[in-house]
Amino acid sequence: MNAITGFEKLEVGYHVPAVPGMDEKDIQTPCLVLDLDALERNIKKMGDYAKAHGMRHRVHGKMHKSVDVAKLQERLGGAVGVCCQKVSEAEVFARGGIKDVLVSNQVRDPAKIKRLAQLPKLGARTLVCVDDIDNVAELSAAAVEAGTTLEVFIEIDCGAGRCGVTTTDAVVEIANAVDAAPGLKFTGIQAYQGAMQHLDTYEARKEKLDVAIAMVKDAVEGLKAAGLEPELVSGGGTGSYYFESNSGVYNELQCGSYAFMDADYGRVLDKDGNRIDQGEWENALFILTQVMSHAKADKAICDAGLKAQSVDSGLPFIFGRYDVEYVKCSDEHGVIADPDGVLKVGEKLKLVPGHCDPTANVHDWYVGVRHGKVETVWPVSARGKAY
Amino acid sequence: MNAITGFEKLEVGYHVPAVPGMDEKDIQTPCLVLDLDALERNIKKMGDYAKAHGMRHRVHGKMHKSVDVAKLQERLGGAVGVCCQKVSEAEVFARGGIKDVLVSNQVRDPAKIKRLAQLPKLGARTLVCVDDIDNVAELSAAAVEAGTTLEVFIEIDCGAGRCGVTTTDAVVEIANAVDAAPGLKFTGIQAYQGAMQHLDTYEARKEKLDVAIAMVKDAVEGLKAAGLEPELVSGGGTGSYYFESNSGVYNELQCGSYAFMDADYGRVLDKDGNRIDQGEWENALFILTQVMSHAKADKAICDAGLKAQSVDSGLPFIFGRYDVEYVKCSDEHGVIADPDGVLKVGEKLKLVPGHCDPTANVHDWYVGVRHGKVETVWPVSARGKAY
Repeated sequence: MNAITGFEKLEVGYHVPAVPGMDEKDIQTPCLVLDLDALERNIKKMGDYAKAHGMRHRVHGKMHKSVDVAKLQERLGGAVGVCCQKVSEAEVFARGGIKDVLVSNQVRDPAKIKRLAQLPKLGARTLVCVDDIDNVAELSAAAVEAGTTLEVFIEIDCGAGRCGVTTTDAVVEIANAVDAAPGLKFTGIQAYQGAMQHLDTYEARKEKLDVAIAMVKDAVEGLKAAGLEPELVSGGGTGSYYFESNSGVYNELQCGSYAFMDADYGRVLDKDGNRIDQGEWENALFILTQVMSHAKADKAICDAGLKAQSVDSGLPFIFGRYDVEYVKCSDEHGVIADPDGVLKVGEKLKLVPGHCDPTANVHDWYVGVRHGKVETVWPVSARGKAY
Repeated sequence: MNAITGFEKLEVGYHVPAVPGMDEKDIQTPCLVLDLDALERNIKKMGDYAKAHGMRHRVHGKMHKSVDVAKLQERLGGAVGVCCQKVSEAEVFARGGIKDVLVSNQVRDPAKIKRLAQLPKLGARTLVCVDDIDNVAELSAAAVEAGTTLEVFIEIDCGAGRCGVTTTDAVVEIANAVDAAPGLKFTGIQAYQGAMQHLDTYEARKEKLDVAIAMVKDAVEGLKAAGLEPELVSGGGTGSYYFESNSGVYNELQCGSYAFMDADYGRVLDKDGNRIDQGEWENALFILTQVMSHAKADKAICDAGLKAQSVDSGLPFIFGRYDVEYVKCSDEHGVIADPDGVLKVGEKLKLVPGHCDPTANVHDWYVGVRHGKVETVWPVSARGKAY
C-alpha cells in the first residue's frame, strides 16, 4: 500500500501525471513540469550570489511547498533552511527533515500555537514572527508547556501593508517582552517588503526598498541601544535581494520565485531594463497542457484552466511560441488564439503560469524532466496546508 | 492506517481542519465550511423544480468534486447522476458509486480515452462529448478493445466559444459516424451556454439562451430528419435552467453552483431584479477565516488568501457583515478594511468565495456544520483531478 495515496499502486492519470523513466511526450496533462536543468541553474546562481555577499539564504518554501525542492536548494544552493507561512507547512518541512524553519507570519490560534511549539521536537530550529505584544505570552506558555524553545522575529511592516509593526518603539517593546519570556528567544527582525517585488523598474523598486532599509536600520539601532542586538535580520525576495544584500543591515534572504520564475515576475525589469526572465533567471516551471478541441479554425482549446493554475496575476504565456496566444481561462479550458490554425488536436504546449505560488498549490505533483525523459515525480508536499 | 492519508490517524490541523462532533468555533482556519441546512434546502429546491418540469437533473460534479455531495444530490434532489469535465473526475465519481457519469468535455489523449473506456466496468453508464469526427474512431476503437459501450453527446457551441461545433450539418455528420461506430451509442446533444450564466439581467441572459435554444432545435430537427432522434438534450446552469426547462427541446439539466452559491453568481439578478442569493438560492459554502494580525488600527489581516480561494471572478465578501470589508488578497493573507477597529485577533469570519468551483479545488475537505457543531468532514474527492 502506498503511503501517499492509500492505493496499491500509483496509476498514471488517476493518481500521478507521470512516472520516472517515461518519455516527456507521454506525460498526462495538465500538470506541472520542472525543467530540472533550469531549476538547478537558478538554485545554484542564487546560492552563489548569497555566498558571495555573506548572506544566509532561507529559501521561501511557501512558493513551491516541496520538501524535495527545499532539499535541492540546501544541496546546490547552500540554503540554511526554509521560511513558510503556515504552521501546517512548517510541520511538513520539519517532518521532511528541514532543520531550520521560520513561520514568517503571525500564529495566533491556540491550537496552532500548540502545534508550533512541538516542532523543535522534530529537530527543527523553529522561528516565528510576532507583531503584537499579546502574542508573546501565548507563545511563551506553549513553549514552556512543550518544553521547547521558540525563536522570535519581530515583524516590521516596511511597506507591504499586511502584518507587522511600524515603529522602532514597538519593535523594541515586543523584543524586550520576548527576551523576558520563558521558552522564547529573541532572534531578530522579519522585514519583507512584499508589495514592491513586482514593480516594473529597478528604480521604483529601489525607492521602496530604501524606505524599508531605513526603517530596519532604525529598528536595529533601537534594539542595540536596548541591549538586544538581533542575530538575524531577514527579508528580501526575487525582485529585491540585491538591495537587502548590499544594505549592510540584513544578513538573511528569503527568496522564493527565482527558482521557478513565472509570467508576472518575468515582466520585472533589471537594472539594465531587461526582463528578469531573459537572463537573470530561467523559466523552470511550466504547466504542460494539451490541445483538446479545435472546432473553430482560429481558436484552439487546451485542457489547462482555473483548476490547473491561478490567474490572480494575469494569464499564462505559451513558452517559446509567438504565433499562438493563451487569451482566456475558464474552469477547465484555456482558449488559445490560433489565427493561422497551426495547432493540432493532441499537441502539447508549455505554459508559464502567471503566478507560481498559488499555481503550485492546486497541483499534487511536480514532474521533473531532463533531456526528454521524466527523471523525478515529486509530491507538492505541503499542498493545501493552509491551516 | 488511514487509506486517505497514509498516516495512523487524522491530525486536526495537519491533515484535517476539524472532526465530527467538534464545536464550530474550534474548526481550524482557513477551511471550507458547508451550512448543511442551507445546502440541503438548495438541493431539494432544484430537485423539486426539475421534477415539476419533467427534467432529468445531471448535477455538475466539477463544481464540488465531491462524491458525498453528489450522493446527497441524488438522495434529496433526485439527481440522475453527474457530469464532470475530466476523465480523472469521472473515475472518482464512478469509483465512488455514481451510476451515470458524463464527461461533458472532449477526450482526445489516447491514454485518457483508454481510461474512459474502462469506466462502464465500474457499473457507470458513461457518456462523453464529441466535436470532431476524427474523435469518433478513437473512442470506438477504445470501447471495442475494452469490450464496453461509450455513449456520445455531440457538443454544440451555442455561444460559449469553447468546444463544440456550430452547424446542424456538423452535428448530423458526427452523429451518423457515432451511430455507425462499434462500441459507441449516439445518445444526444450537449449544449451548455457557459458564457451567459453570469450576465446580470434576466433579459440579457434570455437573449443569449434564445439563440442557443434555436440552434439546438435546428440540430434536433436535422437529427430527426436523419433518423437519429436524440434521447437526451443536455445543458443549463444556475443562471439559465428555467430557459432550458421551458424550451421544449432540452430534457436534462446540468446545474452546479446553485448548491453552494458564490459571490459572483450571487450578483446575478432574477426576473424581478433581485440578487439570486437573496431568495432563489442560499449561501451554503463559506471559507472560514480567522483574524491573525491587527497591528494597524483600521486594517485586520485574516488567514485566507490565494491558497484558500480563487479570485478569478472577484474577491470574496464577508457573510453577514457590512461594517468590515475584504479588500485585498495575497498568497496567504486577506486584508480586511476595519475602519472602526471592531475586529479582534482570533475572531472568525465566514467569507463567501468569488467563484465556488476553483475555490473548492484548492481545499482537501468540506466541514459540514449544523447548529454550531461539526456534523461531517467530507473529502473533496476529485480535488486536483485535472487529467
